Amino acid sequence: MRVAIIGGGVIGLSIAWRLAQLGVTVSVFETGICGREASWAAAGMLAAHIETEPTEEGLLPLARESQRLWPDFAAELERATGLNVGYRAEGTMMVALTRDDAEKLRFTHDLHRRMDLPISWLSAAEVLSREPYLNPRLSGGVFSPLDGQVDNRLVVAALVKACRSAGCAINENTRVDRVDVTDGRVAGLHVQGDDSVSAFYPADIVVMAAGAWSRAIQGLPTRSRLPVRPVKGQMLALRMDPLAPLLRHVIWAPNCYLVPRLDGRLIIGATTEERGFDRSQTAGGTLALLDGAWRALPGIEELPIEEMWCGFRPGSRDDLPILGTTDTEGLILATGHHRNGILLTPITAKAIVETIISGTPSELIRPFSLARFEATVPA
Amino acid sequence: MRVAIIGGGVIGLSIAWRLAQLGVTVSVFETGICGREASWAAAGMLAAHIETEPTEEGLLPLARESQRLWPDFAAELERATGLNVGYRAEGTMMVALTRDDAEKLRFTHDLHRRMDLPISWLSAAEVLSREPYLNPRLSGGVFSPLDGQVDNRLVVAALVKACRSAGCAINENTRVDRVDVTDGRVAGLHVQGDDSVSAFYPADIVVMAAGAWSRAIQGLPTRSRLPVRPVKGQMLALRMDPLAPLLRHVIWAPNCYLVPRLDGRLIIGATTEERGFDRSQTAGGTLALLDGAWRALPGIEELPIEEMWCGFRPGSRDDLPILGTTDTEGLILATGHHRNGILLTPITAKAIVETIISGTPSELIRPFSLARFEATVPA
Repeated sequence: MRVAIIGGGVIGLSIAWRLAQLGVTVSVFETGICGREASWAAAGMLAAHIETEPTEEGLLPLARESQRLWPDFAAELERATGLNVGYRAEGTMMVALTRDDAEKLRFTHDLHRRMDLPISWLSAAEVLSREPYLNPRLSGGVFSPLDGQVDNRLVVAALVKACRSAGCAINENTRVDRVDVTDGRVAGLHVQGDDSVSAFYPADIVVMAAGAWSRAIQGLPTRSRLPVRPVKGQMLALRMDPLAPLLRHVIWAPNCYLVPRLDGRLIIGATTEERGFDRSQTAGGTLALLDGAWRALPGIEELPIEEMWCGFRPGSRDDLPILGTTDTEGLILATGHHRNGILLTPITAKAIVETIISGTPSELIRPFSLARFEATVPA
Repeated sequence: MRVAIIGGGVIGLSIAWRLAQLGVTVSVFETGICGREASWAAAGMLAAHIETEPTEEGLLPLARESQRLWPDFAAELERATGLNVGYRAEGTMMVALTRDDAEKLRFTHDLHRRMDLPISWLSAAEVLSREPYLNPRLSGGVFSPLDGQVDNRLVVAALVKACRSAGCAINENTRVDRVDVTDGRVAGLHVQGDDSVSAFYPADIVVMAAGAWSRAIQGLPTRSRLPVRPVKGQMLALRMDPLAPLLRHVIWAPNCYLVPRLDGRLIIGATTEERGFDRSQTAGGTLALLDGAWRALPGIEELPIEEMWCGFRPGSRDDLPILGTTDTEGLILATGHHRNGILLTPITAKAIVETIISGTPSELIRPFSLARFEATVPA
């Protein structure tokens, strides 16, 4: 069996790694450099619990299972490569700055309690005892002990190395022009490398893991075209003193989140914009992030801005991932992870590999098949 | 006569150009690339009138005379080089957004009127008729028809070319280690180039035009050491559509100024910080600039941030420039221009060249001699 994977982000790479571990012949095709799009842009929060919003209950079982897998996934990746991936599990807080914020947070917290999530309410004093440099006038918060983070850029580096060690062929700077579908099943990929020479790569299985670019891949029948669009997020990183960090936990504040890394980076994210693939860092986006972060953590005032960037979340029509088989035999989908790509990496890799090996989608990902969108078309 | 100039910013270069035009042998010594420090960081406002603040009345005659010289200086520079320097004279506005701002602006305007400056009060409607995209809720403004701008980076490029054409030796990447002073008069400079080899450059006249770095030059007698320090300013540039610019005039708003360039850049400046030579772009500085600009001109929201940078104003003890001769024969000072270096370039060049040729400081710069600071030492 030959598997071709379109997209060298964390989703494509982790599937490739797991398949290669089983002795499958795998090739990854990546337009640019592996993991330099959404996988690179992400903040790496593992927040299955605290991020649960009213419309996202459907994702919870998958998200929680993936979060449960993360410690072992990280440990195995580190063992396989000798590289650190910055997994941290000291818990995450969501804070309210004003009374209005507190009302909203109470509403979300009530939802979380109805869902039996392990999240507890904290007084302002309790928040400040955990993070003393947060705005001392804050009005309260919640603590989610099971939510943490991983350094997604380190994960990318480790996955690339693990894939190579396991024998995957990683083809960077190689664009997939078209999936070859013959008699209702995939036959391979037409690709174009640096040299602009087209080549055909035969494959029994094609995994679509092209994130926000998934819709642009040609050759699929209309019913397999993916309702995925780019959802732009602007972000920035400040530089803390790693020996005396201003923050230790991942913090969700009104209008932004703050993710402190062990190396002293403090990541601030993120805008949510429908702007296609526009890569500009805007005045308004940067202002909103800095203003939100400064209100939560006034001590950022004198911190240097180290980097500003943006990325494109692969957003599906219902913001849930699109996973599993399709009408086109041999075509497997692993895209549309929206803002949960890092979190969902271990479960996606596991479930997709099970699906490929067994030929039928594993139970946990059945709600996320492409077929769910067909129901919305009048008969 | 051989003249050695320490510093290849607009001040050093313009003096060099004028001297070379008179047939004097001139060498410029620049630690890095010419004009890449304060001359590059500046916004290029020519605002002798509207920028006059309560403590700066003493600068007004010099500033107004320099502003009067600018059109001819720009025209001559453009003729000599074939390069455009972006001189614009459509006037400058200072706007008040709130009633409090308006009170403050009225106070400043009263000062300007007592000084007989050609500046007129504008209603909010009159401000908006000139700049329709300013915040429509603004409370008023003033208009200074004689204040404008020049593109300081284009001025740098033109001055370098003009100097070379006129026969100046421009030594970039060459650090001045020490001024050689023998028997109370300058004898030359000890310099060190790329190759780390020291060399002695003999000179009859040494012009100190090293801006914020002026104090660090060794070899001068204690009484000639310069009370100049770096005053950090952070800035950024947004990208407008040059065919439909959001702004046409230079605008002073509360907490920031906005300088639109003909190429579509919109420069926003500047913080004023006592941070030594720290070059970091901070969260607080960027937030303050974007917030100030957004309140004045809400349409910046979607504009891309094109560049962020900082520079070091050479600030003297009284914020006024230090110009002319000293006790050390042959040593001429042209530094400490603080936030007025671009504005004061033509008059500085003119007056310093007159001083060098005649041997005595020209009338207009006498109030700015280094000797003024001696009076503060108890006898």
